[in-house]
Amino acid sequence: MTLKASKLAMVPFVSVDNMMRLVHHIGIETFIADLAREIEADFVRWELFDKTPRFGSHSDVGVIELMPTSDGTYYAFKYVNGHPKNMGEGLQTVTAFGVLSDVYSGYPVLFSEMTILTALRTAATSAMATKHLAAPGATTMAMIGNGAQSEFQCLALKAVCGIDTVRLYDIDPAATAKCVRNLTGLGLDIITCTTPEDAIEGAQVITVATADKDMQTILTDNMVGAGVHINAIGGDCPGKTELHRDIVARSSVFVEYPPQTRIEGEIQQMAPDHPVTELWQVITGAAKGRQSASEVTLFDGVGFAIEDFSALRYVHAQITDTPYYVDLDLVADPDDPRDLFGMIKRAG
Amino acid sequence: MTLKASKLAMVPFVSVDNMMRLVHHIGIETFIADLAREIEADFVRWELFDKTPRFGSHSDVGVIELMPTSDGTYYAFKYVNGHPKNMGEGLQTVTAFGVLSDVYSGYPVLFSEMTILTALRTAATSAMATKHLAAPGATTMAMIGNGAQSEFQCLALKAVCGIDTVRLYDIDPAATAKCVRNLTGLGLDIITCTTPEDAIEGAQVITVATADKDMQTILTDNMVGAGVHINAIGGDCPGKTELHRDIVARSSVFVEYPPQTRIEGEIQQMAPDHPVTELWQVITGAAKGRQSASEVTLFDGVGFAIEDFSALRYVHAQITDTPYYVDLDLVADPDDPRDLFGMIKRAG
Repeated sequence: MTLKASKLAMVPFVSVDNMMRLVHHIGIETFIADLAREIEADFVRWELFDKTPRFGSHSDVGVIELMPTSDGTYYAFKYVNGHPKNMGEGLQTVTAFGVLSDVYSGYPVLFSEMTILTALRTAATSAMATKHLAAPGATTMAMIGNGAQSEFQCLALKAVCGIDTVRLYDIDPAATAKCVRNLTGLGLDIITCTTPEDAIEGAQVITVATADKDMQTILTDNMVGAGVHINAIGGDCPGKTELHRDIVARSSVFVEYPPQTRIEGEIQQMAPDHPVTELWQVITGAAKGRQSASEVTLFDGVGFAIEDFSALRYVHAQITDTPYYVDLDLVADPDDPRDLFGMIKRAG
Repeated sequence: MTLKASKLAMVPFVSVDNMMRLVHHIGIETFIADLAREIEADFVRWELFDKTPRFGSHSDVGVIELMPTSDGTYYAFKYVNGHPKNMGEGLQTVTAFGVLSDVYSGYPVLFSEMTILTALRTAATSAMATKHLAAPGATTMAMIGNGAQSEFQCLALKAVCGIDTVRLYDIDPAATAKCVRNLTGLGLDIITCTTPEDAIEGAQVITVATADKDMQTILTDNMVGAGVHINAIGGDCPGKTELHRDIVARSSVFVEYPPQTRIEGEIQQMAPDHPVTELWQVITGAAKGRQSASEVTLFDGVGFAIEDFSALRYVHAQITDTPYYVDLDLVADPDDPRDLFGMIKRAG
């Protein structure tokens, strides 16, 4: 007897391969700009969402996290690991996958790779923050840390914020060379730099994305001039920061979800009541963003579940009538829902 | 260009169809008895595990939960919904899937349906509890509630505890008829009953598994005689119970993980410090189980993450060298782990 799964039992799955095809089908800059719009639309609805800091399981070598949220119509969660030592073993520091579900039935409606999707939504979120916080007319960014996230950050700021020049620095010149290779031909002026000081010269936006699981001071206070906007992306777990606390102290700090950022972000270096502004309130107009040309604004980005929710909902909408997914027989669906046992018995 | 996923990127997936084939390949009673042994072995290691109550997202019509745990070598989580109204719409009340991961790399090593697997592990857990708590020589059980979980409970107690006679009752005679049909020919004496009072007549073990999301009193105090063991399985979320509190009050109560059971189990009707014994301590000998022939023992089972962990690890071990899984291209795996962007670019 051949067992056929019913329609209800089938859950669309977007593999790594199909995610890459979908990205090329849509166009990577369009994809990122779309994501930034989707995330912004959900940040406007911020108060509707179930929100919680992510649930982490920590070991000596890394962390595995679950990041759920819901707007009452859809539920989404992401599984994501963070293992800085992986890179040295030929593995990804961060891998991820996620699920979108229908709140009304509890049934999953999408299962997707999210290693690529997380890179895209992280860049889209930085771009969204930069759009709202950087000084008007910014055209040059410094990209400090030229690892797996760097090209996405550069392209996102090009697509969403009008950045046309990127100044690259990494402690490892091979990482910078890789970043140059990948960005060549994509419409950006690329300048390679051999020191962080050189990289931030003339940049109105500084994005820092490094992956060490330590307190680092990639930027020190005297390096950061008036009026810049900083995206600090790499410090995203307890004990991992990138900026000297003096920079944080003299910046206006903008965050996603304070209960999570106070544990994971740059502000873990500061007092528990260090003043922060929630980014969603800047977007809705409930709070002020940049207030002067000389202000240093800091987006202390750690990544929040709503961004993954937005990304999964976007992918779910985009794959309809495309070949970029396969159906998985994931949900047992007996003819009589009380007859799970009978379904198994008859399959024998 | 055809994109081939590398070995590392592939994650074995056990579909509903393949889970049924695996169950038949192993034999359902053997499968349940194996699971009971695996769960027992992990309950002995209880103190090693990361433990937390499950993370629920509640709506008016149901709940979606994530249940993670780790022993430091493997990490597992289950996604499970509970939607009592689903049955009336032709859907499963409970559907589930889960993931087993390698703590050292953070990479997933198994993705599996768990609707069927949860039914099996829930029955295995009841059998494990019954083995340790019921009066010696029990041969007859009452099965109150003849829904999706009922046949699994009956077979588990046959396989693990030597039960040879089941007395079935459900408020809906069609459910009982379905249960009879499914259990016929599997080596049990089956007696159908038209009242709960009739069902528990002469039973040394009473298993209650009903699915209403309300405070119910499926059993009232005067129905329960001395010396019986009760498995209360169906009350597994806030606001959902099955037993009159007087039964709970005069029983010795055994639970999986108190912080979760106090929210979800029968003991949510009792004071927050109502005395309970942790089942793992009975198994290790650190706490006493049944202490007299007249004692009423109550396993207030709500299902705990360690049971899913055990089940996923068991399935992971069993599928090796079988055709009961397919590989999914779930983890992005660029040649150079820092070159995620380049992998996407080259796929274009």
